[in-house]
Amino acid sequence: MNVGGKHFRTIWLNEDGRSVDIIDQRWLPHEFRVVTLSTVDDVAVAIRDMWVRGAPLIGVTAAYGMAIQMRQDASDAALDDAWEKLNETRPTAINLRWALDEMRKLLKPLPVAERVAAAYKRAAEIADEDVELNRSIGGNGLAIIKQIAARKKPGERVNILTHCNAGWLATVDYGTATAPIYLAVEAGIPVHVYVDETRPRNQGAQLTAWEMAGHGVPHTLIVDNAGGHLMQHGEVDMVIVGTDRTTANGDVCNKIGTYLKALAAKDNDIPFYVALPSPTIDWTVSDGLTEIPIEERSGDEVSYVQGKAATGEIVQVRVSPETSPSGNPAFDVTPARLVTGLITERGVAKASRDGLAALFPERRQG
Amino acid sequence: MNVGGKHFRTIWLNEDGRSVDIIDQRWLPHEFRVVTLSTVDDVAVAIRDMWVRGAPLIGVTAAYGMAIQMRQDASDAALDDAWEKLNETRPTAINLRWALDEMRKLLKPLPVAERVAAAYKRAAEIADEDVELNRSIGGNGLAIIKQIAARKKPGERVNILTHCNAGWLATVDYGTATAPIYLAVEAGIPVHVYVDETRPRNQGAQLTAWEMAGHGVPHTLIVDNAGGHLMQHGEVDMVIVGTDRTTANGDVCNKIGTYLKALAAKDNDIPFYVALPSPTIDWTVSDGLTEIPIEERSGDEVSYVQGKAATGEIVQVRVSPETSPSGNPAFDVTPARLVTGLITERGVAKASRDGLAALFPERRQG
Repeated sequence: MNVGGKHFRTIWLNEDGRSVDIIDQRWLPHEFRVVTLSTVDDVAVAIRDMWVRGAPLIGVTAAYGMAIQMRQDASDAALDDAWEKLNETRPTAINLRWALDEMRKLLKPLPVAERVAAAYKRAAEIADEDVELNRSIGGNGLAIIKQIAARKKPGERVNILTHCNAGWLATVDYGTATAPIYLAVEAGIPVHVYVDETRPRNQGAQLTAWEMAGHGVPHTLIVDNAGGHLMQHGEVDMVIVGTDRTTANGDVCNKIGTYLKALAAKDNDIPFYVALPSPTIDWTVSDGLTEIPIEERSGDEVSYVQGKAATGEIVQVRVSPETSPSGNPAFDVTPARLVTGLITERGVAKASRDGLAALFPERRQG
Repeated sequence: MNVGGKHFRTIWLNEDGRSVDIIDQRWLPHEFRVVTLSTVDDVAVAIRDMWVRGAPLIGVTAAYGMAIQMRQDASDAALDDAWEKLNETRPTAINLRWALDEMRKLLKPLPVAERVAAAYKRAAEIADEDVELNRSIGGNGLAIIKQIAARKKPGERVNILTHCNAGWLATVDYGTATAPIYLAVEAGIPVHVYVDETRPRNQGAQLTAWEMAGHGVPHTLIVDNAGGHLMQHGEVDMVIVGTDRTTANGDVCNKIGTYLKALAAKDNDIPFYVALPSPTIDWTVSDGLTEIPIEERSGDEVSYVQGKAATGEIVQVRVSPETSPSGNPAFDVTPARLVTGLITERGVAKASRDGLAALFPERRQG
């Protein structure tokens, strides 16, 4: 998407054909820093320390990490070393492991001399495939936005609320939850986005708002507390969020607080959609509430907030008493009964076992 | 309640019998500053700039402001001037106007020579009345906590979630939503409080958590997004919040985000209580959702967060892009259907016209 009028992806191969550039997302929204990754160690640090984040983007970055390693040393030992080194950067990121396996599976059988070219080619393909996947999700979500727009008076905006960042910064381009929004803008539909700030890490305030501002999408930042009130007063036409994991019966595990917005949407008859690439469906899990373990992260994410001080410095400030412990469950599960539809690359599924199975018949379980 | 093992109210008359001391709440939780107010101008600044906040405490502070003025000049003109000066500090605070009227009504008919003593006496009474009101609310809420505790296994804690600060810092002592909690602690019932940080102004993180820490109440600070997840997993036994205004049919206007917690409590069969002194019931309003105008505050409260920097300085940091506008509705309305009961000084009312009328028969409207 655009930053300052210029198109960017979140990762791209440099003209040297070797190193890749990424947007170092730790400094957003205050500073737009592009960083060059030239070694597999650079790549490992960028993933581990969250210069890049978002499952799809992590996968692509890791794939390029393997390619960079091949350029340096394409031996079997180096291949395995790179796999190990990159795999341990973010142990729970599902796309990371998938991309590393994909690269190793491809490269291992090849003669050493052919590995470099093959590695860069496959990494580029994985990046392009992510963009295509998101465009497909976007197209399917766009159809829903168009239906809502058709019921509006001329000139009235479609108001969309989103939580966290399932945006282009989490992918290579377009994002998942944001893809329908960007395609709506391209299609000339007037949209306006309510961006939940998404405490504790403020991905909404720091990333989604920045994306929207950069691409020129009308938007308003709100605290996570405000969405229910806006829905009560007709200010929200639809909700679109992303997901970290969706169960076979349509339960949705996503950033903490998603469940509260789904409840408010239900209470006010507002459609609540979840955008997802099908690889995030976990066909082995049925009941999200009892079967998905929720990561408890450091309480410091609650006790401290990062921002830009009057001096221009980016600092962390403590908001709570030193003597107060903080709890920090990172995700919650929205039961399928609260989800209007799952926007996938193949179409919009009902959030149910049958709904998903109809779109993905090859994955139907026993 | 206690701060560092010593009992404090939020406002008290000094030994000179003239000036009052207050806790300057702007620096909490990082610094505990007590400030002396010696003139009516001091009092006006303290109210206007929110050194003191919370409707009951504002009322008491204003009453003492009138008394301080009487000491300086007890003439009719000075009385009216003080009324004007104090009334314009926080135009929407209902208790402020009530306390000022109460003082003027009492003082105007008295001979000038008797006004000083009468003023200090009445201000002290208003303060004591607030404490008594809150103790009564606390006693009625305590009965509910005791019932829940009786269903627990020995040693198991009663987990209470609260939003914003309806604590002793908002009153003279005990608070409203917190009064049942403090009385439960006094009664030896093991309680644990989940404190919503309450964006955008972080009254939970900065004030409620500080109160709990100071009085030694076990508690955990959480982001506003987390409560639904905790309720889904049986971690919350009851919710108690305060209210700025309650309608005659039991709708509750309170800090933004309260509605979302009420929805989650309903969805998980968890009792949701609202603690209130009966003067906050607006008997003229029925439908909270359509009849109560919601204050839209400065977007800067969303875009900036105050906290303590590593340098020890208390600073504001910007969390969002400069180019992103912020929306900031300050309150929302929780419909009566989501409220289990209204804990008042007279007892616990069902959140309905009949429920309230049964407790306050003298207020039944046409």
